[in-house]
Amino acid sequence: MVKSNQSKIVDCTIRDGGLVNNWDFSVEFVQNLYAGLNEAGVEYMEIGYKNSPKLLKGAEGAGPWRFLNDDFLRKVIPQKGNTKLSALVDIGRVDVNDILPRSESMLDLIRVACYSKDVDKALQLVQTFHDLGYETTINIMALSNVMENELLEAFEQIRESVVDVVYIVDSYGSLDHNDIHYLVEKFRTHLPNKRLGVHTHNNLQLAFSNTLIASEKGVELLDASCYGMGRAAGNCPTELLVTHLKNTKYTLRPVLDIVERLMIPLREKEEWGYIIPYMITGTLDEHPRSAMALRSSEDKDKAVEFYDKLTTPEVNFGDK
Amino acid sequence: MVKSNQSKIVDCTIRDGGLVNNWDFSVEFVQNLYAGLNEAGVEYMEIGYKNSPKLLKGAEGAGPWRFLNDDFLRKVIPQKGNTKLSALVDIGRVDVNDILPRSESMLDLIRVACYSKDVDKALQLVQTFHDLGYETTINIMALSNVMENELLEAFEQIRESVVDVVYIVDSYGSLDHNDIHYLVEKFRTHLPNKRLGVHTHNNLQLAFSNTLIASEKGVELLDASCYGMGRAAGNCPTELLVTHLKNTKYTLRPVLDIVERLMIPLREKEEWGYIIPYMITGTLDEHPRSAMALRSSEDKDKAVEFYDKLTTPEVNFGDK
Repeated sequence: MVKSNQSKIVDCTIRDGGLVNNWDFSVEFVQNLYAGLNEAGVEYMEIGYKNSPKLLKGAEGAGPWRFLNDDFLRKVIPQKGNTKLSALVDIGRVDVNDILPRSESMLDLIRVACYSKDVDKALQLVQTFHDLGYETTINIMALSNVMENELLEAFEQIRESVVDVVYIVDSYGSLDHNDIHYLVEKFRTHLPNKRLGVHTHNNLQLAFSNTLIASEKGVELLDASCYGMGRAAGNCPTELLVTHLKNTKYTLRPVLDIVERLMIPLREKEEWGYIIPYMITGTLDEHPRSAMALRSSEDKDKAVEFYDKLTTPEVNFGDK
Repeated sequence: MVKSNQSKIVDCTIRDGGLVNNWDFSVEFVQNLYAGLNEAGVEYMEIGYKNSPKLLKGAEGAGPWRFLNDDFLRKVIPQKGNTKLSALVDIGRVDVNDILPRSESMLDLIRVACYSKDVDKALQLVQTFHDLGYETTINIMALSNVMENELLEAFEQIRESVVDVVYIVDSYGSLDHNDIHYLVEKFRTHLPNKRLGVHTHNNLQLAFSNTLIASEKGVELLDASCYGMGRAAGNCPTELLVTHLKNTKYTLRPVLDIVERLMIPLREKEEWGYIIPYMITGTLDEHPRSAMALRSSEDKDKAVEFYDKLTTPEVNFGDK
């Protein structure tokens, strides 16, 4: 008998894609996206951030998906299908008093993003959300820049926690299949009681391949976004997972419909994907912020000058 | 001691990219590309096709890289560096009387592309080119559509031949890492006396990943093109191989310079890469010609209608 696939897709188009267009998605866009993902059989839609505007300065002008509100969400999705809703929160930016019990909320899953040094704080939030009835994940960012001792310490705390799923996050899009093999083995060894997730970026055109390989190694929650929309080089494309994962019940057609009607017109106005400055920060294993600044400047296509700046110590005065 | 990498890159920008722009590259473009690849340490540049215009009707208007001529090539590259020159020929389209002995030619490598049923004819050409002093490869196309018995028969002939390198060609961009593992094992088992090569297409964003994995499994010649330029979804990007292959002596900067000065301006005029209709033919494991026709029509973005046409038997009257 063919084993059915354990994978579940978490579509992050609105949440991670919002980093591209400041969450300027219309309600109709999000409704159409939800309907399409639900029809395709995608298990989760991450519909935004659940941070508090009180705790995040300088976010004026952002769309409503930047600071999700339950009353608003109920109007957006009056009838939920099988696709569950997820929100991401950041350490220090979420007010736990804003979070309703799950029974009164549209959300099913709350994910906490953190750097490995903040795992303790993240797990306090996880405990609160868990007690409110939510499924929870902890998403450890920038793993490629974490030293072993720090990671082992984080694992120790996570192992004892209530968190459901622990994410491997390739924040800089710098990992390849060997790194994914290594990390999945490491996480599995140290967190035998936890399910795993993976979130990739496409700086080196490896987001889909890395996600596939993680899935084959038993990683359960697979982050993706339609047409790959996400910060800088973007994410693993939802359409590729839906069509290629074996022994699943996804259907491609509704995702193609989303891509055709929503994403391709949007890509003409907003920029994400395999773009050379993002490839450069990916291969150098660093945050794409310098490349994002370059792409917003008049020198956006001056790849060699940018590469020289990042690789010549005496002229690299930027933070890393 | 760290084992040095056996990989050699064959940059196919002019040859496979010519399928995009009808080989409309200026002499200066090709000279700059050659200089950059040579500086980057890329081992081979495939500078075009060596077919005969007498044997290929309807090719009027194609650039000179469609039908390479040695006198012309000597003017283009008056001084060769370390990067060797390669040309591709097709069965039935090459006149062997056009081929000079290698000692009198600019070319070092002649590659013969064929379907598996034509391996006998390809090997006759290979023998001729080998006798003239050239390095040779045989590039078996559309492997994903070949039955085992036919492939085994082809292997038998290849094993006895003089060909230096045998290529695994993912013509439809439909293979993933498991397929690459399987094919490399199969080729290695049946062709223990031959070196291997790989040529990928990027329909499913797997061209780079598949090439990396083939390289790690000992495949020696890795086809790529700058910024991925090639027919339809394009190829494995040369810049990614150059920056990511371990234990090699490539330098990224000259390839970034090529991409910045030559490829990005060209991409604004010509289309290749991850485009949804090519993803659809890739996932359906078929030739991209239907998607190429769609992209040349007014309905270029009607992905769902195109998908329906290819997947609904009663409306699919096209050839496959």
